[in-house]
Amino acid sequence: MRVVVPFATERPKTRLDGVLTADERAAFARAMLADVIGALGETDHTPEVLATAPLDEASALYPLPSSVPVQVDERVLTPAVNGVLEDANGPVAVVMADLALVSPAAIEDLFSTEGEVVLAPGQGGGTNALCVRHRDFRVDYHGASYLDHLARAREIGASVGTIDSFRLATDIDEPEDLAEVLLHSEKRAAGWLRKAGFSLLVTDGRVGVTR
Amino acid sequence: MRVVVPFATERPKTRLDGVLTADERAAFARAMLADVIGALGETDHTPEVLATAPLDEASALYPLPSSVPVQVDERVLTPAVNGVLEDANGPVAVVMADLALVSPAAIEDLFSTEGEVVLAPGQGGGTNALCVRHRDFRVDYHGASYLDHLARAREIGASVGTIDSFRLATDIDEPEDLAEVLLHSEKRAAGWLRKAGFSLLVTDGRVGVTR
Repeated sequence: MRVVVPFATERPKTRLDGVLTADERAAFARAMLADVIGALGETDHTPEVLATAPLDEASALYPLPSSVPVQVDERVLTPAVNGVLEDANGPVAVVMADLALVSPAAIEDLFSTEGEVVLAPGQGGGTNALCVRHRDFRVDYHGASYLDHLARAREIGASVGTIDSFRLATDIDEPEDLAEVLLHSEKRAAGWLRKAGFSLLVTDGRVGVTR
Repeated sequence: MRVVVPFATERPKTRLDGVLTADERAAFARAMLADVIGALGETDHTPEVLATAPLDEASALYPLPSSVPVQVDERVLTPAVNGVLEDANGPVAVVMADLALVSPAAIEDLFSTEGEVVLAPGQGGGTNALCVRHRDFRVDYHGASYLDHLARAREIGASVGTIDSFRLATDIDEPEDLAEVLLHSEKRAAGWLRKAGFSLLVTDGRVGVTR
């Protein structure tokens, strides 16, 4: 199975701009990418990165293993992923690069769940990972993509599986998501946050972060 | 195994007060309680409600099955649950009443996972469900309870299991959580929201709700 991790090389994680500078967002995004690639590398599949521009490996704090190919496609997420699906000769999995909590077990669950289209919903209606075994399926990541992907699968008569995983559901987009990284990971992204001075802030409601 | 669902009879779901009136919050909380009890009822275990005051079943939109006992303990969550743990002669599971997405499969996962203390983390560091098979374990739901419960389990030498479930991680506390109910449930709480005029609002970020 091809396992593709799309990555926005330039200006990643813009919704974190209230708490991280542009350079910090770039470094943190690379730490998360390295965590996702690391978790995938612990499964039987070799991931590949689908990047909007070449990655600067020479100066990277978190370089990728040299065994991981990087394919460049300048298009935004949806057409770039659909390009992969159109060219595919077999199953394709697509795993978002900002799943800082992802575990090999959750990935194995994604790969082993039956269905011509297997979806891992993200918080807020997104699709954080999917596995496609039907040649006519295409993605559309805009809006409530989880519902759109369910509808698309039904339209083409594809059987659907869904994954119930907090680790796959938690994409790190907004400042409050940073707490989840500190709570549930000891990997690179969590280490980067701690080194940058972030710690958990316990209030009466959900736990947040402070710097 | 005893399966206890704590429920705040009076003034439930105060963090939804920006979008629901007090009467609406009470009705919605009862719909979620009925969904949780319904999911538990599909497993081999009989749940019981641990309520801060008697439930008004006569006028309830979502009455509980008569087979479900309701125990009243006026204390707040932590001492009330610890009262159950102190009195227990065997394993006890505690499942929050606001897990509107909960599925029988997620519950079975909680019950079947090995560990003297099995924890299902909630978004923002809470503990949404747990299963206790060690006589010295006590809860403390204040703050980042997931970390506190991990630490407490280590202190008493209890083996720990954790559950990776989006459905167990999603407690419905804040207005943005309502979107998850509409996205991922067709049960009573989702029906109540739809009847009250809520629908999904698709913006550029995560999906929200509008009324």
